[in-house]
Amino acid sequence: MYFRAKHRSASGRTTETKLNEPPMTDMIKSKAAVAWAANQPLSIEEIDVMPPQRGEVRVRIVATGVCHTDAFTLSGDDPEGIFPTVLGHEGGGIVESIGEGVTSVAVGDHVIPLYTPECGECNFCKSGKTNLCQKIRETQGRGLMPDGTTRFYKHGEPIFHYMGCSTFSEYTVLPEISLAKVNPDAPLEEVCLLGCGVTTGMGAVMNTAKVEEGATVAIFGMGGIGLSAVIGAAMAKAGRIIAIDINESKFELARKLGATDFVNPKDYDKPIQDVIVELTDGGVDYSFECIGNVNVMRSALECCHKGWGESVVIGVAGAGQEISTRPFQLVTGRVWRGSAFGGVRGRSELPDYVERYLQGEFALNDFITHTMGLEDINKAFDLMHEGKSIRSVIHFDK
Amino acid sequence: MYFRAKHRSASGRTTETKLNEPPMTDMIKSKAAVAWAANQPLSIEEIDVMPPQRGEVRVRIVATGVCHTDAFTLSGDDPEGIFPTVLGHEGGGIVESIGEGVTSVAVGDHVIPLYTPECGECNFCKSGKTNLCQKIRETQGRGLMPDGTTRFYKHGEPIFHYMGCSTFSEYTVLPEISLAKVNPDAPLEEVCLLGCGVTTGMGAVMNTAKVEEGATVAIFGMGGIGLSAVIGAAMAKAGRIIAIDINESKFELARKLGATDFVNPKDYDKPIQDVIVELTDGGVDYSFECIGNVNVMRSALECCHKGWGESVVIGVAGAGQEISTRPFQLVTGRVWRGSAFGGVRGRSELPDYVERYLQGEFALNDFITHTMGLEDINKAFDLMHEGKSIRSVIHFDK
Repeated sequence: MYFRAKHRSASGRTTETKLNEPPMTDMIKSKAAVAWAANQPLSIEEIDVMPPQRGEVRVRIVATGVCHTDAFTLSGDDPEGIFPTVLGHEGGGIVESIGEGVTSVAVGDHVIPLYTPECGECNFCKSGKTNLCQKIRETQGRGLMPDGTTRFYKHGEPIFHYMGCSTFSEYTVLPEISLAKVNPDAPLEEVCLLGCGVTTGMGAVMNTAKVEEGATVAIFGMGGIGLSAVIGAAMAKAGRIIAIDINESKFELARKLGATDFVNPKDYDKPIQDVIVELTDGGVDYSFECIGNVNVMRSALECCHKGWGESVVIGVAGAGQEISTRPFQLVTGRVWRGSAFGGVRGRSELPDYVERYLQGEFALNDFITHTMGLEDINKAFDLMHEGKSIRSVIHFDK
Repeated sequence: MYFRAKHRSASGRTTETKLNEPPMTDMIKSKAAVAWAANQPLSIEEIDVMPPQRGEVRVRIVATGVCHTDAFTLSGDDPEGIFPTVLGHEGGGIVESIGEGVTSVAVGDHVIPLYTPECGECNFCKSGKTNLCQKIRETQGRGLMPDGTTRFYKHGEPIFHYMGCSTFSEYTVLPEISLAKVNPDAPLEEVCLLGCGVTTGMGAVMNTAKVEEGATVAIFGMGGIGLSAVIGAAMAKAGRIIAIDINESKFELARKLGATDFVNPKDYDKPIQDVIVELTDGGVDYSFECIGNVNVMRSALECCHKGWGESVVIGVAGAGQEISTRPFQLVTGRVWRGSAFGGVRGRSELPDYVERYLQGEFALNDFITHTMGLEDINKAFDLMHEGKSIRSVIHFDK
């Protein structure tokens, strides 16, 4: 038996989704921050979470970061935003129960939810050229589990999933292919950041661009992603790491993490790409845009060295915005590429990031400027909007 | 002793160049097609050609192709165009004499002039990442030899060089680093085409994109470059080679050279990238823009497969024109790059292209639709403008 749920997205499109009625048994109660509608504070609720179905896993989230992407969707600007929903996609948790057929994780395993899954079977996974597994993309994009239904309810009314993760609920359900099993020695309150921002920045440098020892690197934007890119560049032993931001207060941490040069575009009355080309005697070997500003993306490309410089777009631009440049920039040897989740295949490669963290190759506590309980999650959004936090991490046991 | 020559370029800039007076001895007479000014027919003249100076070589050109780039400069649209000049950059010739210090070629050697030299010493050559040697770029761009003077005169008045080659003169002088020494068994009337168009198209596929066996390839524009890219894709054993042009008369030769699919954008009322994505179940692995149209460059990028598709810009767009796309195209795994002279290092790699030609790996006579003597060179331009030729080759002994 089905009922139909009509939802109006931020873009004004009306989506009608056919959903299962919630089962009357085996639901568990979960504390969750629910986004009932765009541009409203999250509401702390007790919701019902269904047991995991075939190929699914129910996870108790221990901690979750609050990311700009959550804020973007909550703002209503995300054309794919669907409400009501449980946001959050940067978590760490412990497997509470598994559905039929699940073999790769067991109850008690420590896991990081993946908004980019890894099925190992689709053309994308099999290509060996990308981490963008497409196995469940269509349902995930509609806020649903792969079978086209949700696992979250409040008073019998469905609540949508978000990015296949919904880590703002203490209990959440994910497909098995959306979980990276990680070393249980790693503190989930820190490695949860590897579920999005830190991996995105580090991976773009090490995986997508494959920055080599001695290279000159420019990183635009010293938010969480940009700072993670600084770490990645330092791990890759880049010779020169140029941090660019209009907020100079970010430079102290950037320096601590390995940046060697600091440029505030406001100090110059010429295009920042010209400044960097001069500073580097011809341009950088690699650049990274970690903001989501299409004008900065152009600067990042054009500050690259003729003949071989490569620029990687990491930031997500507003809907409909476009990048542009003269094609001469490409014909004379620059390369323009992009990176999502740092090009990292979550199930096969993320556990190794956790190991490298445990071996002390990089720190995560520098990123965590605030911690708080779920009740205070709206404060985490405020701190982010005010530019006061790098990452706020929600501890569910607080 | 010097005199100064003032020249007004097509863009309206006035350039004042300090030039040597012509030496009164050792000049030889040469038949040449001189471009006295933009947008006028070439004039067949007898000019004076100086002997090669230190590090220079005087070459007797046996044959030269006529390329769109010559026409572009002659039209006056090339912002770097300087007149009077001897155009031509796709030649084959024999060393007539060498200047002091020249060791890599000897009198009688067969050579192909290179508008992209290879010095082996500059940062670009040493990088191992590009073929864009910059050793003599600045003087070459000003129509001069590396010492800042010219070797061409008419009644004692200097005539500028063009792209470091000036193959529309029976005798021309080039820097030693601008000559590829090739197997003398190769007919210069054919392998002259490896001096520009054919190498540009084949090299973009094999060198820049490194197309692998079985790959799906889209090639936009079936002119000389696009057809050469078809050859390159066939040599790389691409599984599917899609030829795209609005002039269907080009498809017959494209098929002969190895293209497997033929698309005329005029047959569709939707964007051509959508047509190709449907045709290929998700997009192509590699695409090549061989026209110089910025809108087609966008189509070429956007018809690439999510996750890994790479698009190579080969065509040269008009001054000031820009390419654009949504950054999402890059973030979801597409790569945008460019290629000049097919990424081929002329001195070290072009001789091997000649060998492969001699071994029958590809044919060049398909490209040569017309041959004529220098006297008829303006007809070659007419045929090109009318779309009637692929390449006209000028034979100096005709």
